[in-house]
Amino acid sequence: MPYVNIKITKEGATDKQKKMLMEGVTQLLVDVLNKNPSTTIVVIDEVDTDNWGIGGVPVTELRKISK
Amino acid sequence: MPYVNIKITKEGATDKQKKMLMEGVTQLLVDVLNKNPSTTIVVIDEVDTDNWGIGGVPVTELRKISK
Amino acid sequence: MPYVNIKITKEGATDKQKKMLMEGVTQLLVDVLNKNPSTTIVVIDEVDTDNWGIGGVPVTELRKISK
Amino acid sequence: MPYVNIKITKEGATDKQKKMLMEGVTQLLVDVLNKNPSTTIVVIDEVDTDNWGIGGVPVTELRKISK
Amino acid sequence: MPYVNIKITKEGATDKQKKMLMEGVTQLLVDVLNKNPSTTIVVIDEVDTDNWGIGGVPVTELRKISK
Amino acid sequence: MPYVNIKITKEGATDKQKKMLMEGVTQLLVDVLNKNPSTTIVVIDEVDTDNWGIGGVPVTELRKISK
Repeated sequence: MPYVNIKITKEGATDKQKKMLMEGVTQLLVDVLNKNPSTTIVVIDEVDTDNWGIGGVPVTELRKISK
Repeated sequence: MPYVNIKITKEGATDKQKKMLMEGVTQLLVDVLNKNPSTTIVVIDEVDTDNWGIGGVPVTELRKISK
Repeated sequence: MPYVNIKITKEGATDKQKKMLMEGVTQLLVDVLNKNPSTTIVVIDEVDTDNWGIGGVPVTELRKISK
Repeated sequence: MPYVNIKITKEGATDKQKKMLMEGVTQLLVDVLNKNPSTTIVVIDEVDTDNWGIGGVPVTELRKISK
Repeated sequence: MPYVNIKITKEGATDKQKKMLMEGVTQLLVDVLNKNPSTTIVVIDEVDTDNWGIGGVPVTELRKISK
Repeated sequence: MPYVNIKITKEGATDKQKKMLMEGVTQLLVDVLNKNPSTTIVVIDEVDTDNWGIGGVPVTELRKISK
């Protein structure tokens, strides 16, 4: 019954990619800790780049700078 | 001043139902731990079913399977 | 499969009281949203009063003031 | 590498204000704990007022009452 | 710069197992979303079995029942 | 009524420093968003360095490498 929360910026992750994350994390918990996959919850939060700051700078700006 | 976070999938919970959850949890904390209701915070996160996985499968797919 | 996180200060909640919180929240989600209790997770975080601040003041100090 | 999560109600915080929060928290962690700003993450969650309850009452209603 | 939080019950996960979880999740985010591993944070919360409830029952009790 | 969660590694932050973080964040929310300090909650989580990974490596190991 592990609960895993993955926070990423909202930058176009597809449903397929999100499913791959869910599958991968769930399998990892089976392999490493022998957890029951059927009660393993994975929740993905996609955060606007205006709402995610690194070093005090919103990712929206960091993306512009790095272009 | 308890802080309670309720995460549910985004599947049509009405404002009235969300208020019932807030009232119920707040009253529960009064009854069980004698907490001050006026400083009890309840935050409800409604998560897209594409972003909530159980057993590595997004709830969106689980819903289709169970139909 | 709701996930509920209850954060309270670490001030002596007994195992019995914590179980009452788990039972109460789980039943509330059954009653209000018809959620499946067997996949409802409730996690209680008990936080040191030195690590919980209100109005910028640690609860440890607030408790001393209110004595 | 601190991780800071700021939860506020969704009531019109501008991008500029959110950046000020990111800058301020990051600088605070430098000043107080000498943390490395470049690996300090600040995530701001803006929560609908229907989903934030105080004393069992959604903020949406509290706002109406206080008008 | 993803932030991943893994919540498991405190039931003896070794440092080596916890490192395997960190490595696995970080690599998964590289493989699936091409994320920069050097800014990927993984935090593992180990929760007392008295503080983790499923179906309203603390895991401590569930473990006794299942023995 | 903002809720702020600061996660740092458990590396000796003093009560005084934690109070400074609480005061600073609370004042910041007053200055930037005119929030009511008396209902602003700041919770600090101090995480074991074995449980905090960056780039897949526990901070415990990173600290040894950087010595």
